[in-house]
Amino acid sequence: MLKLFYFPGTVSLASHITLEEAGADYEAIRVDFLSAEQTKPEYLAINPKGRVPSLITEKGILTETPAILLYIAQRYPDAKLAPLDDIYELAQMQSFNNYLCSTLHVAHAHKQRGSRWADEESSFEDMKRKVPETVGNCYRLIEHEMFKGPWVMGEAYSTADAYLFNVSRWLEGDTLDIKNFPKIEAHRARMLERPAVQRVMPLHQR
Amino acid sequence: MLKLFYFPGTVSLASHITLEEAGADYEAIRVDFLSAEQTKPEYLAINPKGRVPSLITEKGILTETPAILLYIAQRYPDAKLAPLDDIYELAQMQSFNNYLCSTLHVAHAHKQRGSRWADEESSFEDMKRKVPETVGNCYRLIEHEMFKGPWVMGEAYSTADAYLFNVSRWLEGDTLDIKNFPKIEAHRARMLERPAVQRVMPLHQR
Repeated sequence: MLKLFYFPGTVSLASHITLEEAGADYEAIRVDFLSAEQTKPEYLAINPKGRVPSLITEKGILTETPAILLYIAQRYPDAKLAPLDDIYELAQMQSFNNYLCSTLHVAHAHKQRGSRWADEESSFEDMKRKVPETVGNCYRLIEHEMFKGPWVMGEAYSTADAYLFNVSRWLEGDTLDIKNFPKIEAHRARMLERPAVQRVMPLHQR
Repeated sequence: MLKLFYFPGTVSLASHITLEEAGADYEAIRVDFLSAEQTKPEYLAINPKGRVPSLITEKGILTETPAILLYIAQRYPDAKLAPLDDIYELAQMQSFNNYLCSTLHVAHAHKQRGSRWADEESSFEDMKRKVPETVGNCYRLIEHEMFKGPWVMGEAYSTADAYLFNVSRWLEGDTLDIKNFPKIEAHRARMLERPAVQRVMPLHQR
């Protein structure tokens, strides 16, 4: 049985939704960020990066959202969560997921996690001020260039949808107005109608 | 025929080496960063992110290194550049590549690209000062936890090796001493012996 380590408000939601969409046999284990459990030796023994998500498999532990999502899609091919039969389409999905992780998520993290990259209070404030611009640029690119509709990749739902839904929940906290991104707003509503999403969401409220 | 857009000193080296390892039929096109060609309309029409690498395929354009590397490995399976027959091992390779792109590369970018995330000169200086610590932490994790040896994934060479070789060329510029990371130092030497690497390197000198 797979085990997913998660915490509400983090990027672990995408993996959680995708396990549920896959019909996987899995257990979801909450890592208590409120008591900094992710920094304790017990959790670091699982994931030395001290982050979520971590996915325990029979063979070992997987980290990094785009890798976990691809793994779930390949493990449960009947759920059709990725275009596994077309290497170009699959690379497009990986490219989208990668952009969320290395550009959008990183831009967002400069709001509250500035101490990852600087030490001075004045730098943290500077970084914070720029978040609406940098994260906004990401959503403009997604809205106008990347999002095909009705799902991220077009007609077929994929792991990219769970990931976009996950990170776009941070949009309002970054003081952006989702009304400026009508495709992303419609996508959120469409995601909330999915039974898998409805089953998982109660665990991801704070 | 594939077309790869690259520039010396950037993360495009990993894709270039991997195309060469694959024996792919491709053309490498230098984007002149010195005249900011990557910000001009002609290039933005190819890649609206204004970055390299970009890979033009018969079906369209791919961006984001981990996605491009997986695509090349899947397109040329006989070259055995990824553990395509084992979804767990493949996810491990994707996880490693993803870590380089979303954590190590991002940490490194705070040295010279602080204006992506802040506006004040004092913040840029603060970020710059922290780079040896943050990038060093990444290499410690790779050296002690991730790197299996003799290649990143163990006995078999994979795309992760080209990617690690690419980013570890920035190590000295980030004022780190590669002697503190003996596995990574030995890996660099091993990579430089590969004919594919030797064929590509002359184009990546500045």
